[in-house]
Amino acid sequence: MKELDRILNGEESLSMDEPIFDVAQLAHVELLTPDLEGTLCFLKDLLGMQETERQAGSAYLRGYEEQYHHSLKVTAAPRAGLGHVAWRARSPQALQRRVAAIEATGLGRGWIDGDVGHGPAYRFETPEGHRMELLWDVDYFTASAGQKTPLRNRPQKRPRSGVPVRRIDHLNLLAANPGTVRDFLVDILGFRERERVVSDDDGSVVASFLSVTNLSHDIAIVPEPTDMRGRFHHVCFHYISVQHLFDVAELAKEAGIAIEHGPARHGIGGASFLYMPEPGGNRIELMGDPGYMNFDPAWRTVVWKGSEVPAVGAIWTGSPLPDSFWNYGTPPAEERPASPTAASMARA
Amino acid sequence: MKELDRILNGEESLSMDEPIFDVAQLAHVELLTPDLEGTLCFLKDLLGMQETERQAGSAYLRGYEEQYHHSLKVTAAPRAGLGHVAWRARSPQALQRRVAAIEATGLGRGWIDGDVGHGPAYRFETPEGHRMELLWDVDYFTASAGQKTPLRNRPQKRPRSGVPVRRIDHLNLLAANPGTVRDFLVDILGFRERERVVSDDDGSVVASFLSVTNLSHDIAIVPEPTDMRGRFHHVCFHYISVQHLFDVAELAKEAGIAIEHGPARHGIGGASFLYMPEPGGNRIELMGDPGYMNFDPAWRTVVWKGSEVPAVGAIWTGSPLPDSFWNYGTPPAEERPASPTAASMARA
Amino acid sequence: MKELDRILNGEESLSMDEPIFDVAQLAHVELLTPDLEGTLCFLKDLLGMQETERQAGSAYLRGYEEQYHHSLKVTAAPRAGLGHVAWRARSPQALQRRVAAIEATGLGRGWIDGDVGHGPAYRFETPEGHRMELLWDVDYFTASAGQKTPLRNRPQKRPRSGVPVRRIDHLNLLAANPGTVRDFLVDILGFRERERVVSDDDGSVVASFLSVTNLSHDIAIVPEPTDMRGRFHHVCFHYISVQHLFDVAELAKEAGIAIEHGPARHGIGGASFLYMPEPGGNRIELMGDPGYMNFDPAWRTVVWKGSEVPAVGAIWTGSPLPDSFWNYGTPPAEERPASPTAASMARA
Amino acid sequence: MKELDRILNGEESLSMDEPIFDVAQLAHVELLTPDLEGTLCFLKDLLGMQETERQAGSAYLRGYEEQYHHSLKVTAAPRAGLGHVAWRARSPQALQRRVAAIEATGLGRGWIDGDVGHGPAYRFETPEGHRMELLWDVDYFTASAGQKTPLRNRPQKRPRSGVPVRRIDHLNLLAANPGTVRDFLVDILGFRERERVVSDDDGSVVASFLSVTNLSHDIAIVPEPTDMRGRFHHVCFHYISVQHLFDVAELAKEAGIAIEHGPARHGIGGASFLYMPEPGGNRIELMGDPGYMNFDPAWRTVVWKGSEVPAVGAIWTGSPLPDSFWNYGTPPAEERPASPTAASMARA
Repeated sequence: MKELDRILNGEESLSMDEPIFDVAQLAHVELLTPDLEGTLCFLKDLLGMQETERQAGSAYLRGYEEQYHHSLKVTAAPRAGLGHVAWRARSPQALQRRVAAIEATGLGRGWIDGDVGHGPAYRFETPEGHRMELLWDVDYFTASAGQKTPLRNRPQKRPRSGVPVRRIDHLNLLAANPGTVRDFLVDILGFRERERVVSDDDGSVVASFLSVTNLSHDIAIVPEPTDMRGRFHHVCFHYISVQHLFDVAELAKEAGIAIEHGPARHGIGGASFLYMPEPGGNRIELMGDPGYMNFDPAWRTVVWKGSEVPAVGAIWTGSPLPDSFWNYGTPPAEERPASPTAASMARA
Repeated sequence: MKELDRILNGEESLSMDEPIFDVAQLAHVELLTPDLEGTLCFLKDLLGMQETERQAGSAYLRGYEEQYHHSLKVTAAPRAGLGHVAWRARSPQALQRRVAAIEATGLGRGWIDGDVGHGPAYRFETPEGHRMELLWDVDYFTASAGQKTPLRNRPQKRPRSGVPVRRIDHLNLLAANPGTVRDFLVDILGFRERERVVSDDDGSVVASFLSVTNLSHDIAIVPEPTDMRGRFHHVCFHYISVQHLFDVAELAKEAGIAIEHGPARHGIGGASFLYMPEPGGNRIELMGDPGYMNFDPAWRTVVWKGSEVPAVGAIWTGSPLPDSFWNYGTPPAEERPASPTAASMARA
Repeated sequence: MKELDRILNGEESLSMDEPIFDVAQLAHVELLTPDLEGTLCFLKDLLGMQETERQAGSAYLRGYEEQYHHSLKVTAAPRAGLGHVAWRARSPQALQRRVAAIEATGLGRGWIDGDVGHGPAYRFETPEGHRMELLWDVDYFTASAGQKTPLRNRPQKRPRSGVPVRRIDHLNLLAANPGTVRDFLVDILGFRERERVVSDDDGSVVASFLSVTNLSHDIAIVPEPTDMRGRFHHVCFHYISVQHLFDVAELAKEAGIAIEHGPARHGIGGASFLYMPEPGGNRIELMGDPGYMNFDPAWRTVVWKGSEVPAVGAIWTGSPLPDSFWNYGTPPAEERPASPTAASMARA
Repeated sequence: MKELDRILNGEESLSMDEPIFDVAQLAHVELLTPDLEGTLCFLKDLLGMQETERQAGSAYLRGYEEQYHHSLKVTAAPRAGLGHVAWRARSPQALQRRVAAIEATGLGRGWIDGDVGHGPAYRFETPEGHRMELLWDVDYFTASAGQKTPLRNRPQKRPRSGVPVRRIDHLNLLAANPGTVRDFLVDILGFRERERVVSDDDGSVVASFLSVTNLSHDIAIVPEPTDMRGRFHHVCFHYISVQHLFDVAELAKEAGIAIEHGPARHGIGGASFLYMPEPGGNRIELMGDPGYMNFDPAWRTVVWKGSEVPAVGAIWTGSPLPDSFWNYGTPPAEERPASPTAASMARA
């Protein structure tokens, strides 16, 4: 267990090379839903999200503090799951550097001309098949006359419907081998690993929480309990107060939407949260206050033993997470088509 | 007024050069106080700050979520004011690059071997004489047995005294010519200007809010109403909720400490806040929720006309700021010694 | 000043007679508005109030936790002001006893058969001409199919519009001689005086805060700065959190509605609050958390000197109340018709 | 099931007799603890309660907003559990009337001269052996010089330790036959039943929530899962915000105190809450916001089917209550002495 002690004490060697700062932020996430109208009703009426545009089976939404055209694309599909994740580079030069690095791994899938709301993007996959893209050129949201606000740093008025979220915060993906995905994000894209869960037995990576920003994580990778690939755990939107979690939980309860867990507070990341499935089946996290932020440029990864996670890491204050949290992802396992090929096609 | 329109519309040319990412964060601030014990009592009993060390007329403090030895140094002095501000570079290489850039401006003051809690630091001044330093090497805080917490990402237990702050957030300085200080921070240190206030008459810079992080600002520069130099407006510490502002305001009120303003919400930055003078006379800001954060790597500076600031920019929700907010800084003007030379010496 | 000391020390003689418990609660308030549609838009879109019925120039509204047909009646009128205030007795017997007591004072105005939402009511006036009624028989609200909630103790679902208030809390009236109104409420109706403001000079009553419930006050009487009679200061609706005050303040600000003061915390009563004029001109108070409650059946009136009120009694934490708070009531003085007779008719 | 429908629809006959208003409030609770120092450390350091006096194995405590000498008496004893509950009458006359009524039931145990902090009290037992007393004469708390506050309606300054509770709110007792205890409280003492849980099978009373105040309940009676008598479920203290629940939960967690459940929100009563065992083993509830209040003098008892309680009545928003909530009371069943006689003596 010397190796585990070494890891827990943060004694891994720190490279003296200059770090990579080429990825700036999570730009948007695409969710697939078998119930487009139900999903949109949830996002708009309960979470107060704004629909910017609708085209060809997809709707584009944003929180009221967001500057871009959208942070969430919702696409009608036979089953729930992740469409793709888009990251924005820090500069055109940074984009070129990262594309070159991705291409060298063989995980690149080539450029697209753009999509609604953004320009050229380079597509790639994680080692476990999650579809991602990297881009620089984005469209900004323009408020209509009725949405304009005298608050110059806010793109539009605060909505009067539901309990409105402010912005996208992070996403969470399932992986059979979280360490492999973590290595790809760290080595090729320049993410920093803020927290990690390791096996009590051998110190191998069980889960990883990484960011390119000052947030505790922009992305998390957690263990896949089935033999499916590329599955989605949740996407998180941000409020500013635990009060908002209680407020939206009431609306959800009275709308007949199940609350999976919360309001409670995570140990890892430290944020207050609420988990709910949207009508299409994808898990949505809502964050009250953001927990801690990290500013230390030499941040030493916080390492947890797997045995500590249920009682402290996953839940710092509140009740234990239910089994569904550890087992459920989208597409759901029970709806899994017979052949992996079909599954892969369904996601396409 | 074409120029003003152009500025308000964010049509200033955006350089295609790669941006500088060499400064990582606000590391610590040194405050001078004529009432060391009073200041420490305020910081420890009301704000729950932790004293790490005391040496030679200075005490070193931190919030309970902070990883480093200290974020605040408090030094006994004949009058209140700013001692110095320390920024941490992103890497040793980044530190060297910025030192070279500062030296070229003639504002460099040379290296020191270090101070309690950190290693070598390069000293410099802003164009208006605020003393700053840039460093890489910092000491980390180590919790005593009684302070240790099972929450692995938190350096110590949450204190049980007062309403404890979590971490330093930003500082605010007075300048006769805020634009000159802004240019220095942007061009030489690589800060991004997030928001700016300009004269209704000619578009000249009245105030500037800048950050190197995803926070809305790590530093603000506001107009100096006297002919003094290098004065201090406030330093801000972070909570997570407006409730904490009301809680600490009650403790302050019952301790006989005046509340200058708040709880209320700023337009610029969007944070909820409370202003109080500490017993030594320096203004302290406490922040509830953090307002908006910026992740856009091509963030277009939000520009306000000076005439908009009192009712919207400074106060988004709440009552107008009192005159003292616009006029009071430390050292206080009324205690100003007869000659500028003496004043400058007193600060040395 | 012995008399003042005696009052401040609560040494007034306490009657050993059994107290009166005949009035149970504030049942509803009628506001007059010159802008019925504007007022209703404010109440419904911003405060999430529910319109139960509209008849003959009046709309009837309630908060989503309220059991009765309405707690607020809004009536179109040439100018803003108070229509009437209705109190509910504790029992039919209690109603009869209080009617007899009122009749003995000469302030009774006789029975009406009822109004929309309630049965027979006995009308009377305070010594300063505020129109009131006392009743027992009320109609209960019945939720429509879409409003029904599984939460059996809540009459309807929480609304999804604006930041919805829960229930009426209290009202505040202006009086040339607050002591006379206070005596009427205490001696004839059985209110308990929870807090009182007295003149620094002679101990005479400047303001009085009274309740029949465990709330800190169901009604307040404050000084009338003009020679008008029967004027209205504000009616207050209840949330549960200071966060809700900040949330609704943002909506108001972006809707172009001025915030008169707050969020802040009162000394008297101890509640957190926000004051806003509704579009018709009447002042509305919104309460976050409720401050203290009183359960002591021998509660000794808390007595303040007038000189203490501005800095502690009116504002415990927050900034000083603006002059308008002390001077503005409805109908507004500036719109006052030439003769008192006309004014009195306008209110009729 | 006609009977059940009738009960659920609130169609029970309402007496036209005048109601009893003779009990004013919950005055204090006595807890027994096998770990007096541990219990006091919890109450004082975590909950910021104030110790007024200590005498003969008992400590007397109060929240900082409470006017009386104490609201909680803690007494060293071989095992945890309820000592007694004290209610304050509305007047000396009301006290005499209720004593006469109790005496007629045979449950009276006679007068005591008084105890630390109050005068003569009449002792009695509920039909299931919970020890109670009724009193009029109470001592008021007097602040020391250092505790005095300029806020005249607050008995002392807000404490600076832990997350300080404001006042006692309610208590909860276990009973083999909750309906019998309910009938005693309603018929003899004049409590109003605000909410009731009935058997899905036969409509018999499973649990009852009653108050003499505007609170949703001053006392609750829930089912006893063992054959023990007179057991205690919890006592509740009041904050004003869900934020306080999260704050105190962190302190508890880091002090090694288990959180049984919460923060979450009840359906019955509607309050936000947190449950923790104190070191002596008694369950303590902390309440954030208070949920709904009832002002209706003809309040119709809200009736729940037992099957609805786990998912809606007990938990409105949050995760399901753990089994311990339904099974654990003090004295704990596992420590139960061999003979009922011994148990009864231990409580004496």
